[in-house]
Amino acid sequence: MNPALRLWQRFLKTPSRVPVAGFALLIVLGTLALSLPAATLAEGRLALEDAVFTATSAVCVTGLVVRDTALDFTLYGQLVILALIQVGGIGIMSISTLFLLLVRRRTGMTERVVLRDFYTHTGEYSSKAILIHVTKFTFAAETLGALLLYGRFMNGYPPHQALYLSVFHSVSAFCNAGFSLFSDSFINYVDDPVVNLTLAGLIIAGGLGFLVVAELQAGARRKPHRWRRLSLHTKLVLTSTAVLIAAATTLIFSMERGNTLLPLEPADRLMASFFQAVSCRTAGFNTLDIGGMTNETLFSLMILMFIGAAPGSCGGGIKVTTAAVLVMLGWFSLRGRTSPRVFRRTIPEESVYRALSLFIVGIVVVAAGTVALQITELAGVPHSESHGRFLELAFEAVSAFGTVGLSTGLTASLSAAGKGVITILMFVGRLGPLAIALAISRSRPAYYRYAEETIMIG
Amino acid sequence: MNPALRLWQRFLKTPSRVPVAGFALLIVLGTLALSLPAATLAEGRLALEDAVFTATSAVCVTGLVVRDTALDFTLYGQLVILALIQVGGIGIMSISTLFLLLVRRRTGMTERVVLRDFYTHTGEYSSKAILIHVTKFTFAAETLGALLLYGRFMNGYPPHQALYLSVFHSVSAFCNAGFSLFSDSFINYVDDPVVNLTLAGLIIAGGLGFLVVAELQAGARRKPHRWRRLSLHTKLVLTSTAVLIAAATTLIFSMERGNTLLPLEPADRLMASFFQAVSCRTAGFNTLDIGGMTNETLFSLMILMFIGAAPGSCGGGIKVTTAAVLVMLGWFSLRGRTSPRVFRRTIPEESVYRALSLFIVGIVVVAAGTVALQITELAGVPHSESHGRFLELAFEAVSAFGTVGLSTGLTASLSAAGKGVITILMFVGRLGPLAIALAISRSRPAYYRYAEETIMIG
Ligand SMILES: [K+]
Ligand SMILES: [K+]
Repeated sequence: MNPALRLWQRFLKTPSRVPVAGFALLIVLGTLALSLPAATLAEGRLALEDAVFTATSAVCVTGLVVRDTALDFTLYGQLVILALIQVGGIGIMSISTLFLLLVRRRTGMTERVVLRDFYTHTGEYSSKAILIHVTKFTFAAETLGALLLYGRFMNGYPPHQALYLSVFHSVSAFCNAGFSLFSDSFINYVDDPVVNLTLAGLIIAGGLGFLVVAELQAGARRKPHRWRRLSLHTKLVLTSTAVLIAAATTLIFSMERGNTLLPLEPADRLMASFFQAVSCRTAGFNTLDIGGMTNETLFSLMILMFIGAAPGSCGGGIKVTTAAVLVMLGWFSLRGRTSPRVFRRTIPEESVYRALSLFIVGIVVVAAGTVALQITELAGVPHSESHGRFLELAFEAVSAFGTVGLSTGLTASLSAAGKGVITILMFVGRLGPLAIALAISRSRPAYYRYAEETIMIG
Repeated sequence: MNPALRLWQRFLKTPSRVPVAGFALLIVLGTLALSLPAATLAEGRLALEDAVFTATSAVCVTGLVVRDTALDFTLYGQLVILALIQVGGIGIMSISTLFLLLVRRRTGMTERVVLRDFYTHTGEYSSKAILIHVTKFTFAAETLGALLLYGRFMNGYPPHQALYLSVFHSVSAFCNAGFSLFSDSFINYVDDPVVNLTLAGLIIAGGLGFLVVAELQAGARRKPHRWRRLSLHTKLVLTSTAVLIAAATTLIFSMERGNTLLPLEPADRLMASFFQAVSCRTAGFNTLDIGGMTNETLFSLMILMFIGAAPGSCGGGIKVTTAAVLVMLGWFSLRGRTSPRVFRRTIPEESVYRALSLFIVGIVVVAAGTVALQITELAGVPHSESHGRFLELAFEAVSAFGTVGLSTGLTASLSAAGKGVITILMFVGRLGPLAIALAISRSRPAYYRYAEETIMIG
């Protein structure tokens, strides 16, 4: 056999490497397609770092842009981006759903009913069945979203353009990609309830994770459809998503009331806060000017971007279940208990360790990315001469890691090295959490065990 | 019995409340003593928030100042501050040593030999014996430090003033307090090896924790004095302290080479980097201009300040053992193992949980403090008009939580509300880690246990 092929096959033997290879391949293809002269309107091709950046941002459904999607790309270029988003979104949802099912050893009765369709006749999960279900769900949601948006865009655009805008933004919203054909995202639609609620609905649907949606569907068919019958995972995802949206809405509303929300009508202020709260954890659309927000809002958004959406979804970040476990752990330990319990269930140690490792690795990656960006962009100037760039670059790093795509506006003006840092952060943020979850699931008890010896903490 | 007294006795029944009450009492006494007209040089008394701030900063051995210790206080005022530092330093070292011994259930053979002096005849730890040993050790180290410093300050100051400067700075260094009688800390001594090395030695000695020092002393008396005989705790403290100092020296040297280190001789650049590396985790002296450093250095210093020193020492932060456990946990989980092992020992689950809770609570406290300071100091102005205050205020919050005392220079100009936030952060940063360690140690298995149900992470 060809030695290169053998090396490749050996590389793919570790399951976590398959998505890494798949996404890398998709990025290479996207880079090539976007480098063609036909992709861009301006003369000449994209610089290589811009093509890699845009392809990575689309495949990882991040939405950070170094070129204006609406003005700098041709229709062909925009369709390439749309295709990358769609494949990247369905890809991450299917792969993470499959892998998370593999990781999850104990499966409850409820789930076995819900997930029956995903089993092969040998009792293993069928990746094909999962892919088909995920694709069906995605297209159904996107079609519904596009229809609702079309009703709105019909007023103001010729029919074919209204259709294009509706499809593009519906896909971008459901995949939590955040790419927009409007140069200033949805700022012009800040007071439009149809656009706000449709996009928010798509973002939430794409961010709950496929398994949660599948379980809710199955539950809706059963009578009586009781909360208690849901799996712990679904309960936790729904509760923490609701709490995070409510908390973020309150924070944004109170911190921006006298700032970016000031020009709006009172009711629109609440709607804009709600939309930004839904969008900031991972979608990345904005109806408010992010660069004009206060420090406290930007910092709060960074925390929300870092948390992200649910596992098995299009969303990024360390995931809402991770955040929930961490909060419970902190809370319970203050009350003198070690094993976190919620909804009359104990969270197993393995889930706790996985959450903690993900949190630690995430913090380290974001901190390293932030330091790297300070170095590439500011070249060692003293703080007093950096004009507040610290927060803007840290914001950019978290946005890339959480595959969010919000920015205070400096992405396009980053140096080539800085774009490289962001590109790496997007890739690591997309696949890192999955890889960590898999690494821990492979853990086996060691053959020998050293004696325990306490150390002092605190 | 008097009902107030009964309430008080009931409050003190939970052991973690005793140090809280003790430190609060000390702060009240310090505030009263510093509010007397005799304490300050300027006409009139200190504003109440400044008196509370200064007393808290001294008792918690933080070193953040809203008034210039050298120029605004009389000799009496300075002696009050010195006394508060000394009592606060010995207090936190004794209390945390005692409490950490109580928490530590399994005691190894080595330790039992080392700690024999601390047992009462009933087999319990004697708080009196610990207090005596800690005090002896403190005075011995401070006397030695003062003698070395005196040799340096004799050139340039009249004898009685040289003595005063030596004693004050020796106490302040050993207690990791960071208060200085020079308005710009030790910037004028940046190239002085005697001052740099003496202070660094005192800071390290005061930051290793009393038990480590006791074990090293006992080990030095035994022959052969082998590394392998040391307890896991001591090995971990020594290793992680060395790694952190080496890493911090390298970071500061490389990030400031073209900036604040530029005017210095090559050898002095290394010494200044080393001194700042030793001092930044918790002591808070500086020989370089912190406000003139680059963003990347300031951010790195924030991480180091957050980590802090060893448990059972005068230092603050989440502690080096906590950081070591977290790094090991992240590293081992990436390699597919859950229980961290080091030096041929397994870290028990209880230590891991304690480290994690401390980390999570610390992050939450610092984040909340940072947001609070943005709100109190900037009153909702947009980011673009905040002139880089985000980083400076976040730096201040971490410095207070880690009881470090480094500042980019804005402490004195904080609003009264901002000073209140910092005061709370200093107090919480001083006693919070101990309280969390104790809360977890009291944890008992629950009477009933819910069934486990896995959730998905990643
Ligand atoms: K996104
Ligand atoms: K200090």
